[in-house]
Order: sequence, then structure tokens, then C-alpha cells
Amino acid sequence: MIIILKRNAEEAKVRQLCSELESMGLSIHASQGSDEHILGLVGDTKAVAESWVLAHPVVEACRRVSEPYKKANRKFHPEDTVVQVGDTLIGGDKFAVIAGPCSVESPEQITEVARRVKAAGSSLLRGGAFKPRTSPYSFQGMRAEGLTLLEHAREQVGSPIVTEVMNTEHLPLFENVDLIQVGARNMQNFELLKAVGRMNKPVLLKRGLANTLEEFVMSAEYIMAEGNEQVILCERGIRTFETSMRNTLDISAVPMLKRMTHLPVVIDPSHAAGIAWMVEPLAKAAVAVGADGLMIEVHNDPPRAKCDGAQSLTPDAFDALMEQLKPQLTFFGKTLN
Amino acid sequence: MIIILKRNAEEAKVRQLCSELESMGLSIHASQGSDEHILGLVGDTKAVAESWVLAHPVVEACRRVSEPYKKANRKFHPEDTVVQVGDTLIGGDKFAVIAGPCSVESPEQITEVARRVKAAGSSLLRGGAFKPRTSPYSFQGMRAEGLTLLEHAREQVGSPIVTEVMNTEHLPLFENVDLIQVGARNMQNFELLKAVGRMNKPVLLKRGLANTLEEFVMSAEYIMAEGNEQVILCERGIRTFETSMRNTLDISAVPMLKRMTHLPVVIDPSHAAGIAWMVEPLAKAAVAVGADGLMIEVHNDPPRAKCDGAQSLTPDAFDALMEQLKPQLTFFGKTLN
Amino acid sequence: MIIILKRNAEEAKVRQLCSELESMGLSIHASQGSDEHILGLVGDTKAVAESWVLAHPVVEACRRVSEPYKKANRKFHPEDTVVQVGDTLIGGDKFAVIAGPCSVESPEQITEVARRVKAAGSSLLRGGAFKPRTSPYSFQGMRAEGLTLLEHAREQVGSPIVTEVMNTEHLPLFENVDLIQVGARNMQNFELLKAVGRMNKPVLLKRGLANTLEEFVMSAEYIMAEGNEQVILCERGIRTFETSMRNTLDISAVPMLKRMTHLPVVIDPSHAAGIAWMVEPLAKAAVAVGADGLMIEVHNDPPRAKCDGAQSLTPDAFDALMEQLKPQLTFFGKTLN
Amino acid sequence: MIIILKRNAEEAKVRQLCSELESMGLSIHASQGSDEHILGLVGDTKAVAESWVLAHPVVEACRRVSEPYKKANRKFHPEDTVVQVGDTLIGGDKFAVIAGPCSVESPEQITEVARRVKAAGSSLLRGGAFKPRTSPYSFQGMRAEGLTLLEHAREQVGSPIVTEVMNTEHLPLFENVDLIQVGARNMQNFELLKAVGRMNKPVLLKRGLANTLEEFVMSAEYIMAEGNEQVILCERGIRTFETSMRNTLDISAVPMLKRMTHLPVVIDPSHAAGIAWMVEPLAKAAVAVGADGLMIEVHNDPPRAKCDGAQSLTPDAFDALMEQLKPQLTFFGKTLN
Repeated sequence: MIIILKRNAEEAKVRQLCSELESMGLSIHASQGSDEHILGLVGDTKAVAESWVLAHPVVEACRRVSEPYKKANRKFHPEDTVVQVGDTLIGGDKFAVIAGPCSVESPEQITEVARRVKAAGSSLLRGGAFKPRTSPYSFQGMRAEGLTLLEHAREQVGSPIVTEVMNTEHLPLFENVDLIQVGARNMQNFELLKAVGRMNKPVLLKRGLANTLEEFVMSAEYIMAEGNEQVILCERGIRTFETSMRNTLDISAVPMLKRMTHLPVVIDPSHAAGIAWMVEPLAKAAVAVGADGLMIEVHNDPPRAKCDGAQSLTPDAFDALMEQLKPQLTFFGKTLN
Repeated sequence: MIIILKRNAEEAKVRQLCSELESMGLSIHASQGSDEHILGLVGDTKAVAESWVLAHPVVEACRRVSEPYKKANRKFHPEDTVVQVGDTLIGGDKFAVIAGPCSVESPEQITEVARRVKAAGSSLLRGGAFKPRTSPYSFQGMRAEGLTLLEHAREQVGSPIVTEVMNTEHLPLFENVDLIQVGARNMQNFELLKAVGRMNKPVLLKRGLANTLEEFVMSAEYIMAEGNEQVILCERGIRTFETSMRNTLDISAVPMLKRMTHLPVVIDPSHAAGIAWMVEPLAKAAVAVGADGLMIEVHNDPPRAKCDGAQSLTPDAFDALMEQLKPQLTFFGKTLN
Repeated sequence: MIIILKRNAEEAKVRQLCSELESMGLSIHASQGSDEHILGLVGDTKAVAESWVLAHPVVEACRRVSEPYKKANRKFHPEDTVVQVGDTLIGGDKFAVIAGPCSVESPEQITEVARRVKAAGSSLLRGGAFKPRTSPYSFQGMRAEGLTLLEHAREQVGSPIVTEVMNTEHLPLFENVDLIQVGARNMQNFELLKAVGRMNKPVLLKRGLANTLEEFVMSAEYIMAEGNEQVILCERGIRTFETSMRNTLDISAVPMLKRMTHLPVVIDPSHAAGIAWMVEPLAKAAVAVGADGLMIEVHNDPPRAKCDGAQSLTPDAFDALMEQLKPQLTFFGKTLN
Repeated sequence: MIIILKRNAEEAKVRQLCSELESMGLSIHASQGSDEHILGLVGDTKAVAESWVLAHPVVEACRRVSEPYKKANRKFHPEDTVVQVGDTLIGGDKFAVIAGPCSVESPEQITEVARRVKAAGSSLLRGGAFKPRTSPYSFQGMRAEGLTLLEHAREQVGSPIVTEVMNTEHLPLFENVDLIQVGARNMQNFELLKAVGRMNKPVLLKRGLANTLEEFVMSAEYIMAEGNEQVILCERGIRTFETSMRNTLDISAVPMLKRMTHLPVVIDPSHAAGIAWMVEPLAKAAVAVGADGLMIEVHNDPPRAKCDGAQSLTPDAFDALMEQLKPQLTFFGKTLN
């Protein structure tokens, strides 16, 4: 960490700051010019909050040099992490497609979609039981009953299941879920992150709509700091000024996250654009840029979907998409599993 | 709600869409020109999700005309809501200042700050016990013990207490809190909103960093829809591209929220800028624009604060600020209480 | 266009608004419910400004239904426009790579880079002569002399040249430039757009850092409305909250712009990320998503580049990139030319 | 400037970088820890581009410590600059109101509005002659004729005139304009900035819709570096995700710009919100926060305004606003002139 001192900072106060820093086990390299007086802190600054430094009256500015995350940091863990969900591997050269409806709506619907997306080549089944909705008057999901229907679909079809948890109190209901999703709106629900960090289950963490990549990785770090290192990062579109689409896919997040961390990164093109016809080009871009997987919404009857119908593919459209992606995955050296 | 149909939409499918809409109790006014075919829906469209409409294959676009919120809507409740916390009123011409440290750190610290901010003219005491922090390695608050210290400070000094809840499981600990705060990162933690909506206690709801005002009001609507109409809205800065401050205060939110809703609106200038010297000009702007209150961070020793020291006023600086605000409040016709 | 009237709007004033609209050649379909009174305008609303409508005292809101652009609109011109620059075609299934240094710095530098990028497979040579820089103290380009050096490099190497114009007064100097670039900061320099619209030369228009796609297309429309329909759109990254990269590539812009317009769309991965090692994954994503070309910065000695060295590839790295892109272009059915 | 070197950077290359920096007249203070190797540059780093530093293969990151602006910097010019336009002073404790229509539309319109706004207490007359419009099909202003009408209104009424220039080629027409405006979309039209910097006339520079305050000040620096130090900064709203208003007023820009620079800062509440009823609360906030002036749109017949009618006050509404602002200015110690 680097601390830039104010011009004409009182020397006694600077010395006091230095001794506080030294008492935290840091050593200090000062460089003083005509205009600038800079302190370089050497040692483990992870626990030194920038706001704490900035509150000192002699400090003009402060900049962190080393990353504030450790367990997720590729510098300390150069190999790719490969996360296993059931028999499916995600990460390294293993690519997985997660598909299914936005919401679980009925036993027939979820089982039928599960069958179709598995036949098309996806290996994990998604389906929302607890649904975060902007309006209290919108469909809130089938909740516990939805989880039961997902488990039933898994029994029938054989695909591990992925579904979102919104609240720590619901976690006991998620015992039989294979991959627990933390949604974009809960990316900084820190108590929830800690709770899933204490579980022995892989977690799919979605990026918040207006969060930086560092904040995203820090949320993964919350989970990992509790002992659960099976985290998959999911980019699902960020909020921008654009109005012709729901969100804007940040494709650059994939190479940057893979440089910052060793965790697998998947792309959700359905939520990113919010428009069914855009899923295909964005899915292709995701494969080309090096993503480890895709999360795609498929509904048997999109115009009657209880949520997000506009972005859902029909099973036939999903078949067609998978037929295009398979040779592309081979071309780019990835193994679909 | 207005639905714009695709050019050359198949007539049978349009008829099918119309009958689905009519079966939801809506009546339809169609207007068809050479280029455009538009359906105007008349009736209660609150439960008609835009995404559902957009999923229909004949639909090009759809726009909501009436607001999706009802209980918070000023159109149906023209008078200002005045929220009472202890003996303090917020709303109408009653103005209140909420002050205290970012975090409760010790019995001496919280009681000392409580005494000073009360003497200066604030009526409610803030202090964080459960702290949402970006990093798992930062101070997470004194948690339950912090709540006890807050209650003790209230006993000593007499100010009602305001503190943040991060998780539904912690709510039983908040029984003795006077005003429950839902923080910016939890603005769309819908399960938490429902839970505080079932309590019989006023709620201070902070706006998320990248949320629209409509989304903000919809989160208030979540609380109100459960029966709790004692909601105070708090604007605390939004995320923009600016780097010289932590966030950007959206001062326009005050008049716009007061037009959209009947709820009181307070401003938190401390979090908005993240810089102590900016609190004074922003607080003045808040009074002039018509806010109903202020939430200000005060710490007895900012350079040693465990969080957000850079934005905390000393008790002396807070005294000086209040001396400036008092005549300004009188000038603008507000009563400090 | 749809106009939503205020509740209780005075009828005489509504009639007056309607007759003003009718006098502009529009016909009006009204639909009135218990809560809402809506006017649907039918006819050519391109010249009806939303701000004009909103200024009427009876109007609550107004929404445009049909696109405000005409010449660029794919609805009226379904086939892809293919732009020719020298012998190179861009658009349809023809793919072109534009490469060269950020700035022209010396005769040796530009000719050497020109030779290398042509040998690697790019067909157009870029190089900045007039440079838009945030600071007046930064290198402003070689200006007129830079144009001469570019022409000289073209003579030696044979590649058509692409360079940015910043001011209408400089346009006479651009007579011998093959493809005129309008930069991101000038996307809404409307006088410049009109001036290049009166030239008989293809134009590469870059998207502004915080502009919507509709605004971008409207700027193309400015050029086209003057008679010049040879416009290439270039997405080069938008400003977001992310700090680990300079800008964020909006890959979704490609399919959306190609649906909105019939113009070719190229991607500039160098400016999008501002980091040399990110050019490769982003270029691959651009090919996969369906872009018609790439614009890539190459410098013979990046650490000594006068601007944007951090994002410039060396000629060797560019060779390696092109070797990867060539089979990928074949895979996706594009012809490099 | 601080340079953070890569771990394991080759020593020979580091020495080479250091000698290049030293040859630019900078001295270097190195601090090396177990994890980090940092160079602190001391001397005038204004001309050292960050992108140049970042291009060096041994550099991991680099941060500027001192501000990149000099003439605008309050550190080197602690007193407030007061700009004079005709007899009107702006800056220090002198407050001025600039008022008038968005566009000049006819001799009667501009003279009538000029008379009314002067009578109400504004001292400068605004009116657009050259209009930057998103659509080529919208009214583009009366252009040269509009300037003539403005001059005529000045002759009749006596107020100095303020109007926007969009192109360097038009500057000869602006010889008789009292205060030249550079609009938000031209904030980074660097050739235009240089050209107005060579004039001997005050300039009102508007902030771009998505520009940081540092970029804004750097654009002022462009003007000042050419010798013209009579620059007034104008905050007019920034682009955010909010959809209920056109832009979001960044009220914090006032205190921050006044700390960064010595230039006067005015607020344009009309463009900030784009809604007439919001002008009053935002104007009051601007006075309270310490702005040096206001720029307000007034039109004799808003529903028939050729542009921006929705945000224009009637002359009567402007009278009422000024009656409220006058005692407020006195309260805050400002002199209206």
C-alpha cells in the first residue's frame, strides 16, 4: 500500500502514523521530493482498510498495490481450479452447459425441460424455486415445493440441479441441491456468503449488476475464507446506459477474472441481454473468449413462462444452439461434459 | 400498459394474446396505423410482468404507463407520511438529524458520541453493530454485543437508536431497536424486506448504489405490502464514474421521490461523498432541496475509527455544522425535532 | 409515438394538442380507460421531438415507437451494406483487419509497421496524425506531417490508410485519406458529422464512451442524411465502473447494431481494454459474435510509443494473433480480405 | 507518480526504465519489500503519460500522485477567480443568473424573454443559435441569423449575451458574443477548446455527460494553456441509470471543483433534470451548496418551444423563482449582480 501525505504535513503526526503502522507489523519506505511525500508500506496490508488510512489528518490519498484477496488469487494458486458437480467438471479444459427454465412451474414443465436440455447436451439443470423479483406483486417462485420438483426432475432425468438461495434461513432446504446459486442481487449479502462458505457444496456466484471485478472476487473470497473453495464465478451482464437490451454482457470479465483468480468462469447470455435471439451470438462469443461454461434459460412455452419468457429459448432453439456450439468447442480445444 | 406489436404480426396470434389479457380482467384499446399496431391495456396491470408480455412472439415492445407501486404512491395518498421514532417526527415540516459513529466500538465510545450528538441537536443515535464490508478481512462489527452497547447508550442519553440489520435470522436481536435500517447492499434482499415488513417498527431503507428510483420505491412497496407503512427513504449516494469521491449524492432524488411517494426522505451526506469536509455543503444542499432529515457520521476519534473514519466528523465539527443548519432550517420553514 | 395524458387533463387543451399534431400530418388514435388516457400517433413522427410533446401541460409522458433513424434502418434496407476501401471490402461475409500504430511518429516507424501488419494479413493501415488527448500537455500528434508520412507509407506498402479527423477545418488535408475516422469523443460533433457526410469517402465512426446504440446510429444517420452512405460503425469499449481495464467492450453491440442497421460493424479490442494481452481473447470474441472487422494497434516498440503503448501489440505478437484468427474466420464462414 | 513494478521484473530492464525517467529530469526513490517493488518519481511528471509508463514490460501499475493540471489548480492559485462578463461578476461572493430560451426562435421571442428575465433579476441572456441535436431531423437552430437576433435583443434590453459555439469555423461569427459557451458534447472537442483559448473572451465550459471532474478540469486547462484564463465551469447533470429525469445533477461537483480549482462554478438545473418543476428545488440546492451562478431556461410559450420546452420555465414562473432565490442568496452571503 502506498500513502501520499499532504504537503506541509506536521512531522510529529507523520511519525505517529508511521508508528501505528509499524505496530501492525508493516515496514515503511518513505520517499520525499519537493512536491510529494510518499510512504510505501511493505508487509501484509490485507487488513489495513483504506478508509482507516484516509482518516488520518496528514494523509492526502492512499492506493493499494497488492490485491486484497488471497484464497482466490491466481498469484498464490497458479493452476486452474476445476469444480465438480455430480459427475460434471467445470474449469481447465472442461466445459459445461447449465440449462433450464427461469422458474420451476409444475412437475410436467420442469421434467420435460430437463429431459430436452439433457438430450441436447447440457449436463446441469437450472430452475428457480425462490425468485428475487423487483415487485412484490410478481410471481415469487414455488419456493420449497419448487425444490421438491427439481429433485424429482433430477431423479427422472439424472442431471444434477442448480438453484438460487436467497436467505440463510432457507439453507436447510438446499441440502439436496447439487450446486447452490447466489444471485446477482445477493452478491454482497455477506451473511449469506459466509453461510454458503460453511457448506460442503459447490457455489455458483453471480456478479452484481454494478459491481467491479475486484468486488466480485472479494465476494468469492468471503465464501472461500470460510473454507469452501468450490466457487464458480458467473458473469450475467452489467447495468449500463443501453436501453435496447436488459443488461450489457461484460465479455472482458472472462479473461480478466481468469488472470485475477484460478476459479472457473461461466457466462449467462440469457440474463445478459434479456432477449432470446441474442443468446446465440453471445454464447459463441463466450466460447471464443475462453469461458468455462454457459448458463442458458430454456422454457417449453416461453410466452407462458411465469418469468423471463422474453429471454428463454424453446427446447428446439436450444437443440439448434447446441449443434452450433459443439464443433465450436472442439475448435477451441474445450471438452463438453 | 402499452403493447407495440410487430409489423406483420399474425392475426390469429394477436387475437390469442388479446384473449389472454382479457382473461386477466383487462380491456384493450387497439390503434392501428400504416406502420404501427398498438394495444393499450386498461385496468389493473400491476401484476402483468413486462417480461411476460415481451415473450409473446407478436410483441415488439411494451411500456408501462401507470406506476407499478400502489401503497407508496402519492397519487393514492396525497398527504405526507410522518414517521414517529420515539418522540421524534420525520416528515411533513418535521426535520430530524440522525448522528453517531459508523460502528459501535466500545461502551465509552458510543456513550460519549451519543452524549455529544444529542447535545448538538440530533435526536436519533446511529451506530453499526452488524457491518457489511467488502472484504471478509475487515472489521465485521461487534454484532450482538454492539446492539447491547447501543441500548445502554440509549439508556444513558435518551436518544432512540437506529442500526442496520443484515439478515432475517438476526431480527429477534433487534426487538429493542427503535428504527431498523436496511442498508444499500440489501435494498433488493427481498426476504429481508418482507421480514421487516412484518414487524411493527419503523424502517429506514437505503437506496442501492446503482438502483433507479422506481426500484427503490418498489423495495419500499415490499415492506408496505406486508403491512408496515412506517418507511423512511434514505438517499446515500450512487455509483458514478467519478473517482474523487466515494459516491455521488443524487440530490434530485429528494424532490422526485417526494413526487412519486408520500414517504419521508432523508439524506446521508457522509456516505455520499465519503469525505468529512464535504458533509457540510452537502447537508446544506439537502436542507435547501427539501429533505426531511439527515444521517451523519460522527466519531470521537476519526483517525482511529474502525471503519469510515475518513468521512466522520469530530463531535466539535458536528457542533459547528448544527449551528449552521439550525438557522437554515428555520429559513426553509422546517422544525428540527 | 404514444402520448400518455395526465389524469384530469383539461379537455380543451387536449383537443388543442390533437389539432396541433394533426396539422403536422399525423392521425391520432385515442384510448381512454378509467386510469389512463393515451394517444397513439400514426404517421411520420421522425420530426416530432419528444421534448416538444413533453412541454405540453396535459402530457404526462411520451414514448417513441418507431425508430428515429431511416437511412441507417435495416427495416428499410434489409441487405447488408458492404463498404469498399481501396480494394478491401468490409461487410456481408467480407472481413477486414485494420492495423497500425496509435500515432504516426516517424517515416521509419510508420513504414516498418505498415510492412509488418500487411505481411501478417491486415489490409488497411491505421495511424493517428491528429490526436485527441485528455491533457494539453500530452503529445498531440504530428498533424499535417503525419498525414504525409501515412501517404508515403501507403506508397511503399500498398495499404489504404485510415486516420482520424478532429475538426472540419482540417478536412482539406484528408483528401488523400482512404477511410476517414471520426473518433469516440467526436461522435456527437454534429458539424463534423455533416461535413464528412458531404464527402465522397467512406467513414469509420466510433461509438462514444457513454452513448447508447440509438445515439450511435443517429450519428451515422447525420452522415447518411447528407448523402454519404458508406459508413462503418466501430465499437471500441464503453465507460463502466470497472477499474482493472480502461473501458469495457460491449460485444452485444455487434448483433444489436446489425439488427438495427444494415451497416458493417467492426470492433477495436485495443482501445476497449487498453491492455495488450487482452487483445487476443477479445478479438476472438469479436469474430465469433459476427463482427465484420477488427481495428488493432501495433507498434514496433510499444514501451517507446508516444501514446497507448500499453495496449499496442508488437509486430511479432500481431503475427501470432493473425495466425490464430485466420482458421477461426474460416470456421465462422468469413473471408479475410 | 508512483510506479509499481512486476514481481521478478528483470533488473536490467528496471535500470533501463529508471535511466529513461531520469533523462526526463525526474529523480527516483525506490522502495522494495518482499512482495512489492515501487518507484516514486519526484519532479514535474505532467508530461509523463501513464500509458507510456504502463507499456514498459516491467511495470505492473502506475498511479499519478500530483494533479495533471496546473493553471486551473487551486494549489498554485489559492484565491477565487472572478470572471467579468460586461458589468457582471461571477465568482467570489458575486452570484449571477443566466437566463433565456433554449433556442432563439424569432426577434419577438428573444427580445420579449430578454426583457422579462432581466426584469426578474438575471443579468446575462442565454439563447442557442447553433443547436447540437441528437437527430439530424430536429431543428438545428437559426444559426448566424440567431446570433444577429441575440445581438439585437442585447441592444434593446442591455444584457450581455451567452451562446454556444459548435465549430471552430463559426468562431468569426462570435466576435460580438459576450460569453462563449462550449457545450457538454464538445467538452472534449480539443481543437475547439484550443481555439476559444486563443480568444480574448470569457468561456462557459459545460461538463460532458459522462466525464469525471478531472477530465472536466483538464478541458478547462486546454483553454487556459492557450492563454485565456477567464473560464467558468458549468455542471449540467450527468448520465446515470435513472430514467425518471433526463440527467442527474451532480451537486457535489460544486464543492469538489472549488477545491480542485480557483474557477467559478455555475449550475444548470434546467438541463440537469429536463423537467420544469424540478428547477426550483435544484436551484435552491445550488445556492446552498455554494455555486457562483445559475443557468436557467425560460421560454415565453414552453409548449411551442422548438426545443427543450419540457424543462423551460415561463417568465411568470421565473419571476416567482427569483423572488425565492433573492432572500436565500442574502442568507448565504452571496451578492446577486
